[in-house]
Amino acid sequence: MIIIGERINGMFKDIGEALRNKDPKPLQHWAVKQEEGGAHYLDVNSGPAVPTEERPEAYKWMVNVLQEVSKLPLCLDSTNYDAIQAGLELCQRPALINSVPAERAKIERVFPMAVQFNASVIGLTMDKKGIPKDAENRVAFAMELVAAADEFGLNMEDLFIDPLILPVNVAQEHAPEVLESLRQVKMLANPAPRTVLGLSNVSQKSPDRHLINRTYLAMAMAVGLDAAIMDANDDDLVDVAATGQILLNKSIYADSYLKVFRAR
Amino acid sequence: MIIIGERINGMFKDIGEALRNKDPKPLQHWAVKQEEGGAHYLDVNSGPAVPTEERPEAYKWMVNVLQEVSKLPLCLDSTNYDAIQAGLELCQRPALINSVPAERAKIERVFPMAVQFNASVIGLTMDKKGIPKDAENRVAFAMELVAAADEFGLNMEDLFIDPLILPVNVAQEHAPEVLESLRQVKMLANPAPRTVLGLSNVSQKSPDRHLINRTYLAMAMAVGLDAAIMDANDDDLVDVAATGQILLNKSIYADSYLKVFRAR
Repeated sequence: MIIIGERINGMFKDIGEALRNKDPKPLQHWAVKQEEGGAHYLDVNSGPAVPTEERPEAYKWMVNVLQEVSKLPLCLDSTNYDAIQAGLELCQRPALINSVPAERAKIERVFPMAVQFNASVIGLTMDKKGIPKDAENRVAFAMELVAAADEFGLNMEDLFIDPLILPVNVAQEHAPEVLESLRQVKMLANPAPRTVLGLSNVSQKSPDRHLINRTYLAMAMAVGLDAAIMDANDDDLVDVAATGQILLNKSIYADSYLKVFRAR
Repeated sequence: MIIIGERINGMFKDIGEALRNKDPKPLQHWAVKQEEGGAHYLDVNSGPAVPTEERPEAYKWMVNVLQEVSKLPLCLDSTNYDAIQAGLELCQRPALINSVPAERAKIERVFPMAVQFNASVIGLTMDKKGIPKDAENRVAFAMELVAAADEFGLNMEDLFIDPLILPVNVAQEHAPEVLESLRQVKMLANPAPRTVLGLSNVSQKSPDRHLINRTYLAMAMAVGLDAAIMDANDDDLVDVAATGQILLNKSIYADSYLKVFRAR
């Protein structure tokens, strides 16, 4: 399981203020703290804290201040592809581009950029009309993205399909469809694309957020989830990621496997 | 998820002593306590505390003392089919017979008894040679049991296939094979047989037992687990069962879903 720490996002008050004040400390604090928690990547999202036209400069600044304190690769998270490109140009390690929907114009912008910068891509199973209700249509979008990886020469393991989980309290019928999508996506190609979820979405505004997140993480791992954008400082959640690896026989069992997972 | 409370088992010291002393209180205590925790069935297993020849009388006594205090149906757990039959004759509600392997002589003893007493059957994916290593051979045994249900006129929903999870610390490679078995068993017939696991087995002698149990429960639910023999008084585990139901869209989401699950 690849853990992508979600915390460096302008939607969080401390990060939003840091972006407005050009204060690197909160970003650097969360870079270190998420790595300690178990993160393998740091998601980097300015959110609405930065006006659109200033985002390329903001992403350059974020990449630089994060690379000062952390060797973790970055997951550049924006709908502004100029900002992502500005960030990619400074990344010292292969980055993850978050994200591209199954829309031709955006695919043509993002896939060549990924290949140029040796980056991976998160492909969303949606288009302009939105997120499909069922697994079948999600998988159809995944197939378009898989075909695009072939077309533009992106390694299949560098494509991460995100079947887009919605909050269970308002869109409950999506949760099993996303599980079925994960299972089917892993059979679309050989080697298969990888899979990812924005996990915290499933529990938005539910009182039992942490329980819902960790239960859904285990369920998704059972059907082929490879990565999650998640709270890398929720120790119980990271424990489930480590335990799922053991139960899928992907990491070797030792009584100390929880420590081993965090120490790797 | 059907929760079968595991606690009334002679392997536990208090139950073993109660069986030797014919003291109903510990059995009745755990019957009530497991029902409060969320159990839908009570597993009833004398274990080695009762000599083989005395087991039919012991199962009669256990069924009677449990039915004095609980309306939960019983899961009669023994390799001694005379003991199970003696118990079935006294059961006031449709029971579950635990268990029969894929061996012809035992199938011929158990399936007609189940039909006669309107009971369900747990069928184990093993024979005299033991438990297969892979999903393929587990599913082959499941097919024999499905065919036997057809042959003897047992409703398919009254057959619970148990693909037999082993301790992850000594037989780690079995854990993903059991998940794959569960998924395939649900596709063997229409309607499908149900599935069950002796969940606590997965974590035997591991330091992080509760974490392993609840992670594997969520994973197994994602691939089709219908029931588990488990610790009905591990609140975190019962929470995962309730949350899995929500995330599979099998129970309707409400903010109070954990309370609703226990109150049903």
